[in-house]
Amino acid sequence: MECVYLGNRNYDGSQISSLWAYNIAGIQDDSIIYFRGTCDVEFDHMIDLEDKKGNESIYSPDMIHFIIEHFDSTDLKLIYPRQRLFVSIVSEILTVKGLNIIRKGDDLFVNNKKLSVSIASTSAVSQKIHFGINVVHDHYADLNSSELEDDEIEQLMHEIAECYVNEIDDIEKDLRKSRPLDVI
Amino acid sequence: MECVYLGNRNYDGSQISSLWAYNIAGIQDDSIIYFRGTCDVEFDHMIDLEDKKGNESIYSPDMIHFIIEHFDSTDLKLIYPRQRLFVSIVSEILTVKGLNIIRKGDDLFVNNKKLSVSIASTSAVSQKIHFGINVVHDHYADLNSSELEDDEIEQLMHEIAECYVNEIDDIEKDLRKSRPLDVI
Amino acid sequence: MECVYLGNRNYDGSQISSLWAYNIAGIQDDSIIYFRGTCDVEFDHMIDLEDKKGNESIYSPDMIHFIIEHFDSTDLKLIYPRQRLFVSIVSEILTVKGLNIIRKGDDLFVNNKKLSVSIASTSAVSQKIHFGINVVHDHYADLNSSELEDDEIEQLMHEIAECYVNEIDDIEKDLRKSRPLDVI
Amino acid sequence: MECVYLGNRNYDGSQISSLWAYNIAGIQDDSIIYFRGTCDVEFDHMIDLEDKKGNESIYSPDMIHFIIEHFDSTDLKLIYPRQRLFVSIVSEILTVKGLNIIRKGDDLFVNNKKLSVSIASTSAVSQKIHFGINVVHDHYADLNSSELEDDEIEQLMHEIAECYVNEIDDIEKDLRKSRPLDVI
Amino acid sequence: MECVYLGNRNYDGSQISSLWAYNIAGIQDDSIIYFRGTCDVEFDHMIDLEDKKGNESIYSPDMIHFIIEHFDSTDLKLIYPRQRLFVSIVSEILTVKGLNIIRKGDDLFVNNKKLSVSIASTSAVSQKIHFGINVVHDHYADLNSSELEDDEIEQLMHEIAECYVNEIDDIEKDLRKSRPLDVI
Amino acid sequence: MECVYLGNRNYDGSQISSLWAYNIAGIQDDSIIYFRGTCDVEFDHMIDLEDKKGNESIYSPDMIHFIIEHFDSTDLKLIYPRQRLFVSIVSEILTVKGLNIIRKGDDLFVNNKKLSVSIASTSAVSQKIHFGINVVHDHYADLNSSELEDDEIEQLMHEIAECYVNEIDDIEKDLRKSRPLDVI
Repeated sequence: MECVYLGNRNYDGSQISSLWAYNIAGIQDDSIIYFRGTCDVEFDHMIDLEDKKGNESIYSPDMIHFIIEHFDSTDLKLIYPRQRLFVSIVSEILTVKGLNIIRKGDDLFVNNKKLSVSIASTSAVSQKIHFGINVVHDHYADLNSSELEDDEIEQLMHEIAECYVNEIDDIEKDLRKSRPLDVI
Repeated sequence: MECVYLGNRNYDGSQISSLWAYNIAGIQDDSIIYFRGTCDVEFDHMIDLEDKKGNESIYSPDMIHFIIEHFDSTDLKLIYPRQRLFVSIVSEILTVKGLNIIRKGDDLFVNNKKLSVSIASTSAVSQKIHFGINVVHDHYADLNSSELEDDEIEQLMHEIAECYVNEIDDIEKDLRKSRPLDVI
Repeated sequence: MECVYLGNRNYDGSQISSLWAYNIAGIQDDSIIYFRGTCDVEFDHMIDLEDKKGNESIYSPDMIHFIIEHFDSTDLKLIYPRQRLFVSIVSEILTVKGLNIIRKGDDLFVNNKKLSVSIASTSAVSQKIHFGINVVHDHYADLNSSELEDDEIEQLMHEIAECYVNEIDDIEKDLRKSRPLDVI
Repeated sequence: MECVYLGNRNYDGSQISSLWAYNIAGIQDDSIIYFRGTCDVEFDHMIDLEDKKGNESIYSPDMIHFIIEHFDSTDLKLIYPRQRLFVSIVSEILTVKGLNIIRKGDDLFVNNKKLSVSIASTSAVSQKIHFGINVVHDHYADLNSSELEDDEIEQLMHEIAECYVNEIDDIEKDLRKSRPLDVI
Repeated sequence: MECVYLGNRNYDGSQISSLWAYNIAGIQDDSIIYFRGTCDVEFDHMIDLEDKKGNESIYSPDMIHFIIEHFDSTDLKLIYPRQRLFVSIVSEILTVKGLNIIRKGDDLFVNNKKLSVSIASTSAVSQKIHFGINVVHDHYADLNSSELEDDEIEQLMHEIAECYVNEIDDIEKDLRKSRPLDVI
Repeated sequence: MECVYLGNRNYDGSQISSLWAYNIAGIQDDSIIYFRGTCDVEFDHMIDLEDKKGNESIYSPDMIHFIIEHFDSTDLKLIYPRQRLFVSIVSEILTVKGLNIIRKGDDLFVNNKKLSVSIASTSAVSQKIHFGINVVHDHYADLNSSELEDDEIEQLMHEIAECYVNEIDDIEKDLRKSRPLDVI
């Protein structure tokens, strides 16, 4: 699994499309790609129908973004636990850094204020996850309020991405040393 | 998904077999079953070949046990992220209760001492997870050292089981409101 | 599995789209939704290429409609036997009500005249079935000719929907008490 | 799909094992194999744990037996609707022959007495169904009571097997002319 | 699996769409369809993003074309080995005819010049492969340079198509006589 | 995918079991493991029922053996084309070395004499292939007759294993740059 940092880049929702990683960076491996920039999801790129129906804006002036793509399956059942697991990893890392984080499903909260946005889905060729964390936000929770500096934020991004890659690698290794179950 | 508390009962590894829930309690739903008792896994019931090769004992005088069974798929890829997600849920709950928990893969640690054992695998008919947490242990971490009383431990068991059921329910609901991805 | 009656509503083929149930009624479960109204399938919503090639009209002035959606798989192999099974259930119920029904694949016939229309397919997120039964039709078989009254027809709709939900539930229960096969 | 009549042969439950058709008759196609004989399922060959737990005998002095094997999938979700569809086909054929048949799940009843036994499951290589219909039985419903003669019974067996083969063939044809669903 | 020769016909990339075989020829079986004509793939029909990004033309004045469609799975993992196997079959047949062929992935080369083009992918309903071999080409390798006459070329097309059908048939037969693996 | 040479070792059929690679060498990746030694498959380890029924011996005094294990799927449909593709790769390499090889399904022939043995199957946890090539054999074709020296044979083993790893890697890369198909 490849781990690619793209520096500054905005998220408009087109990055959730399958094969975006190949298109933008020629990546031909499963990947986690991350960058920092605004979040402003165009209506046509909304995946969650609840957002579309509510005509909600998904906006943040400054976020760190993670885009995960897996090609081993197109099973919707699989991408959701992977998404929740990713969110748990972020939660664990931020907890160690002293933030008072609560995870609810695919959302993170600090002091009952939402810190993050996330979506997961599949196409006929791949599974993808987007996860964004507010660095600066007027109404929602953000990392700045937690007094994380810019270089700490970049460091945080590397750490999160590496943790997910290691978790997936660890799972793949477990797969290869466990025998099937007996049946009563 | 059914949530069943069995009180006191020992774990010898036979409970990881598929259809154990039906056999023991007539359960015909996906389920999480939990109980408290010793852990002493017989060699024939070891699923992790690393344990079998090392001829390791998987023993605890007092544990709380969770047995999860899903019938929606027999994909090994799916049961492992579900297992990791379950372990994260336990970690989150224990953190809120004041324990200084670190999760590494499917293990929990307190002060660098292992608190838990876990295994996940599939048969031709179902996927299963076992997760056990030491209540009392001489060498490893345990809940008693964290000053959790018996009634708090029973309460903890209910809380963990309900959280997992809610997480799976939440995932199933997300599945049903997300459109497929576009492709670049 | 949810069972939802929508009263009077026309069918134009858009209802076969995945996630229609969520969009129209916020349903986040597998579901069977049923209503009564005209059937007039727009060319763009035709799923069966035979109809598209033949430029056939799929029209009825008065039908009862059933829309089934499952999210447990996107396997085409699975939705077709489910469709046939649904048609068999309808056939069984109408037979008990005294109609002289013959099922051929996904069609029902009374006196060699077609009583029903049906389609089944999948998207990347769900499987769906549409089944419509003529209440009034000039050329084809219809329920009116069988002297079913309006209230009997509404009762019939409830009965069909509940039977399918029970059948799926019964299958899910069987899944959870059968061990895998031996191999010679 | 191959359709093979084996004449007289008893059923002891070993015939439900995967690859039995190859072993007994060199069959290398999906198949429905049928024969007439006693039914006496050995405990070790019981697939339904309810029968095993209840220590029930599955016995009939004279039955017609159908053994179906598919290799296109090992998905439990798929073999059960196929089983129910097969039972519906049998029900339809017997109804036309004048029997007053009621299907409940995978069972057929005449005058509230059970006429049939059935099981379905999968191994790592195939899916299988067994379906048996009493020709003679003291306590349960049987075909003799319905005044079907021996030659009619053999004819019935051919008819049922052919109907199932045609139904599967019809499904496979439908698969190849239906486009995927749109998503709302 | 059906084997259909369409004579002269040009390839513009639209033939790679799922259900093209049904649309053009009413085919309701898995199929290999072959014909001879130009190759000029329209930008909108390009499946390989590398070609799209490079804005490459996929052009040949005279090619033999093979279009394969399978409906047994929509697994991307499955269609690629099938594609490579098909290319190996073509390579084997051309080697016997005296050509000095080298296969690299899904490409064939003669004297380091590319002889062929190929693509494989899936939709929500089927898997497809296109494979084209230059009969005449100015820059690339072609069959004419290998002194194959027109009637030999038509004969070659039949031979390739039949070999693939036989290979798939042989695989399906092997499936039905091999027991599952033990596990250490 | 890992590529591991084990030197001299005999094949008795137990090596086809899932997780053998982990057990013998701690391998936790998909793998191709190869070695040279006798072949003498014990009856209990026979996977092909044709061999079991015929009570055939699968014996060679000196063979090179390749054992492939994949964990990405347990689909029988997938392991067979992979097996055929592997056999094609071996055929291509031996052809370049001057042998007059013909492949038929999963067998290689030289002068109408069988050079190889092969089997492929799955368990609930992995897919595996065994492929063996006679180095010395009295009745069948062998590499010695083709005047390949010992060091050339070891070189050949490395070459075959690397070619397969590269082919799988090439397929995985193709997966990640191809968009899904349109549908007519």
